[in-house]
Amino acid sequence: MNETYQSLIKRAQELTELGSILQTLTWDQETMMPSRGGPFRARQIATLAGLCHQKLTDPAWGEILERLKDADLDLWSRATVREMRRQHEKAVRVPEELVRELAETASLGYEAWVKARKESDFSAFSPWLEKIVRLKQQEARCLQFSDSLYEALLDHYEPEMKIRKVDEIFAFLRPKLSSLLEKIQASNRQPSQDLLQGNFPLHKQRAFGRDVLTAMGFEWDAGRLDQSPHPFCTGFSPLDVRITTRYSEKDFSSSLFGILHEGGHALYEQGLDPERYGSPACDAISLGIHESQSRLWENQVARSKPFWQYWFPRLQQTFAGQLDQVSLEDFIHAINRVQASLIRVDADEVSYGLHVILRYGLEKSMIEGDLEVQDLEAAWNTKMREYLGIVPSRSAEGVLQDTHWSQGLIGYFPTYLLGNLYAAQIFHQAKKSIPNLEENIREGKLMPLREWLREQIHRRGKTMTAGELIEDISGEFLRSNYFVDYLENKFGEIYGL
Amino acid sequence: MNETYQSLIKRAQELTELGSILQTLTWDQETMMPSRGGPFRARQIATLAGLCHQKLTDPAWGEILERLKDADLDLWSRATVREMRRQHEKAVRVPEELVRELAETASLGYEAWVKARKESDFSAFSPWLEKIVRLKQQEARCLQFSDSLYEALLDHYEPEMKIRKVDEIFAFLRPKLSSLLEKIQASNRQPSQDLLQGNFPLHKQRAFGRDVLTAMGFEWDAGRLDQSPHPFCTGFSPLDVRITTRYSEKDFSSSLFGILHEGGHALYEQGLDPERYGSPACDAISLGIHESQSRLWENQVARSKPFWQYWFPRLQQTFAGQLDQVSLEDFIHAINRVQASLIRVDADEVSYGLHVILRYGLEKSMIEGDLEVQDLEAAWNTKMREYLGIVPSRSAEGVLQDTHWSQGLIGYFPTYLLGNLYAAQIFHQAKKSIPNLEENIREGKLMPLREWLREQIHRRGKTMTAGELIEDISGEFLRSNYFVDYLENKFGEIYGL
Repeated sequence: MNETYQSLIKRAQELTELGSILQTLTWDQETMMPSRGGPFRARQIATLAGLCHQKLTDPAWGEILERLKDADLDLWSRATVREMRRQHEKAVRVPEELVRELAETASLGYEAWVKARKESDFSAFSPWLEKIVRLKQQEARCLQFSDSLYEALLDHYEPEMKIRKVDEIFAFLRPKLSSLLEKIQASNRQPSQDLLQGNFPLHKQRAFGRDVLTAMGFEWDAGRLDQSPHPFCTGFSPLDVRITTRYSEKDFSSSLFGILHEGGHALYEQGLDPERYGSPACDAISLGIHESQSRLWENQVARSKPFWQYWFPRLQQTFAGQLDQVSLEDFIHAINRVQASLIRVDADEVSYGLHVILRYGLEKSMIEGDLEVQDLEAAWNTKMREYLGIVPSRSAEGVLQDTHWSQGLIGYFPTYLLGNLYAAQIFHQAKKSIPNLEENIREGKLMPLREWLREQIHRRGKTMTAGELIEDISGEFLRSNYFVDYLENKFGEIYGL
Repeated sequence: MNETYQSLIKRAQELTELGSILQTLTWDQETMMPSRGGPFRARQIATLAGLCHQKLTDPAWGEILERLKDADLDLWSRATVREMRRQHEKAVRVPEELVRELAETASLGYEAWVKARKESDFSAFSPWLEKIVRLKQQEARCLQFSDSLYEALLDHYEPEMKIRKVDEIFAFLRPKLSSLLEKIQASNRQPSQDLLQGNFPLHKQRAFGRDVLTAMGFEWDAGRLDQSPHPFCTGFSPLDVRITTRYSEKDFSSSLFGILHEGGHALYEQGLDPERYGSPACDAISLGIHESQSRLWENQVARSKPFWQYWFPRLQQTFAGQLDQVSLEDFIHAINRVQASLIRVDADEVSYGLHVILRYGLEKSMIEGDLEVQDLEAAWNTKMREYLGIVPSRSAEGVLQDTHWSQGLIGYFPTYLLGNLYAAQIFHQAKKSIPNLEENIREGKLMPLREWLREQIHRRGKTMTAGELIEDISGEFLRSNYFVDYLENKFGEIYGL
């Protein structure tokens, strides 16, 4: 039995290595690759994705997994077998040709998106999106999940999550968020518009961002910070985790909260057990849980008063002359300003969920065949008016703003809002479990929180499902009210509701 | 027949794609990867190298190549079949396990070398080198070349080149170089030692280097310039070619000539035909020819007076205050200063060859079993005294200075000196073939030379051997006298011999 399990682990490690090579190629494409390198990179990615698929669908897996079916295994080994079975069974349903075509199209689609967004020209991107949607529909059909094509895609990112459940949560949240947004907009306490605007040299933004990451416990000998059109985090292994952000000279907050957000993701990746890495069980549970880590650091921690009691004087010092006249109170209010706006990644905590619900509806309709790509932009704009009362004047600030669809990441968006719910529930528990958490944060001591998250979440890999994890940490199923309560309390106070 | 050839091309393209992924992983390791990423990267590289080897040794190749043996093919297709056969026949002799172990050891060996060189501690690196030498001996034994194990390794880098020939050339050159070096050292015209020393901010060095590269015709939308412990060039495809250099604030010349040298390599890679790329015939002929391109730009062009008639005023302007008092004549003399020195990559054109001959002798002895790694440093120092009359006081400036052995690149060094010979013979012809070459260079116009090299060399890929190419370009076999004449004329004039 031990021998069979060892052969499983060896094969699984090879798959992990190849998978992380694919990630390396994508990271390089988004941060380093010269502009004309795209088509060849797409071929490299397609070829390697095809090879990974061959490895994953090798009939030998069937035998190995069968032999281990009733074996007496410990927690980690059981999780490894379960996860390997899940990956293998999904992979055998999808033909290699489709995998290669998807990989190549996603890589080329990304290049087309970068260009189209720059020129704010949706028509230059829509043929790519049509192809991507068609291929993802094919993939979903192959996967033979439930009646819903979309559910098969959602399962890549949030395993075991059902559309029914997402619909239920989002239906509950949408009116709550809209109503809170309305009340806030009607409040007579509104922060100054231009308090965060100024002249913030990029190298100082970078240095400040690095300081905060260091305090969070980001390990620089096992990671990097770079620049890319769309901020992201990718982990090649727990000892090589890379994040990116984007900079604007006029506004430090976009790069900084980008760094904090991706830094939260990075701590998850660096927190995986390096000794177990290579096993499919030693990976993030789901993208929703991943997002809980980024949102928890970005929002629960870094948009709170205790955090800035420590960091605000340092920020003022870094950008001497830019923020001297700003009080801590006004600053906190400004970074928590709630306002219907166009760009999801810059959205406040209240309206953010509405951006996600909008994308979720649109991508589900496209995959289910209820919305044509040619009608997408109009549908986007209609929903923006309906949900947020505003409409983008340029595609770059509307339907072209996010990179996900260009890379074939459909079914991914809902995990962002689920991540907010997980974050609220986890942080609620953190405050109960970690002694003097708020005081620590006020003193710039962020490591106790990192350690608690590492122990409760990161180190545990995929030994349980997201639902089980939340229950284990908080003693309860995932509940929306922690998130709603958090928002209502926090913004009720700030806006005097 | 056409169908068989198409299936060969398709398989060959896949191999090219996978091979260039390996290069991407290595480039990333040397430029971007955080320090603790090494062991996992080594595993990625080993796994992918193993996969490449599986693909290359696939028995299907035998059948495909057999069917194409007597086919009526055009020049490019013939070259493709010949090269594919060569690669396949070599690969089947080497077991996959050895390929993986070599790849992993080379990657880990590189990390160990970086650390050992930093600490100038040969004993920290020698266990790695012992392992590498042992593995390379095994590889050479598997390849079953001639009586000489070393010849099998040399053939990786300079196909069809024989030890007998290299021995003959080097035996001719060594006394010539030594004698010229002695005469120069005895001359009473010696340039000022500290003329090139000063304070040269790195970002200005980078900007000046970029300007020169641009003038040479380096295509920035198909390439990058970065920083690494050892300068190198790598081409993932003709549309993605990356070079590195290293900077010293006190001395701009090391980074600049590094950029010029690697830039010459890069023009070769960018000059390969993108339409044909993926076929094994669309690649550099040999490392000797590759080196001819780098040395031609670095030395024949960029250490010449016409070059600096254009660029020197621009250099003075870039580093305002540093070189104002220096005359063009003194500057030319300073960048051509000949002096026995410790570091190969910073060596002048005369003593450079002696550094190569030294390494060639040592690595040949190690592979043939005549020199133990534990005796290497002593042998190095003895030869340094014999060839150059100086001995390093630190390992970092002696046996640890070059990265090659750490990466398993044994048999590579002689191509550096062969490259100098090729460069002299090619540039001799270029002056005859390109109208007003010197005048163009004096006016900063470097593109006609790039175009001529592209047409004569780069675009032709591997449609002939290095020997055939030289004969085709110059009407003669490779001859050492072009190089010796070039050195004697140039340095005779500078040093008034």
